[in-house]
Amino acid sequence: MATEPPVYAVIFSSQLAQSAVDYQDAAEEMVRLAETMPGFLGCESARGMDGFGITVCYWDSEEAIRHWKQQADHQVAQRRGHEEWYKKYFLSIAKVKRAYGVNEKGERISKWRKK
Amino acid sequence: MATEPPVYAVIFSSQLAQSAVDYQDAAEEMVRLAETMPGFLGCESARGMDGFGITVCYWDSEEAIRHWKQQADHQVAQRRGHEEWYKKYFLSIAKVKRAYGVNEKGERISKWRKK
Repeated sequence: MATEPPVYAVIFSSQLAQSAVDYQDAAEEMVRLAETMPGFLGCESARGMDGFGITVCYWDSEEAIRHWKQQADHQVAQRRGHEEWYKKYFLSIAKVKRAYGVNEKGERISKWRKK
Repeated sequence: MATEPPVYAVIFSSQLAQSAVDYQDAAEEMVRLAETMPGFLGCESARGMDGFGITVCYWDSEEAIRHWKQQADHQVAQRRGHEEWYKKYFLSIAKVKRAYGVNEKGERISKWRKK
């Protein structure tokens, strides 16, 4: 079953450098900023004690992802990530074919909904 | 730029229940088992102190993903996840359109490679 309308996932995994400072605040600010962007559907993040983290954000088009990539404050954060925060990182852009899950009430859910 | 050959990402996010026991060992065993399956390309996981985690596994076909979903030991783990471990979870299956990153040596990398 195809997911309609289209949903794209941006999967970002990263290993924080030991020396990473200001990272957490900046990351939270970026999520708040992403939430204001057109086409944003949702974002989830997890980071373990070892500094390895994965963030997955969902968007309604590739154009929305490009637009976000080029957003000025986000560009500054990308540069700091590359130069200061991340020891390594990997980003995949993928088109969601199907999705399902169970929410906290035990109800089946079948797609991303705009918050 | 399209990624060739095809790469599919299975994005699994979950909130562990307070009562989840045996979870970590079983999760590690599932990754070891996945690594032996045909079409497996790689797996990454992160889980924070709050019990929220994301695992992304990459496969070379949707058939490989179906095959893994139906694997007997994995089915037992899925059942335990649903009944015991997870307060909520969400799974997306997505086709990777492009991917890039920087490894620990600072070298640009552009796709998933089989380990």
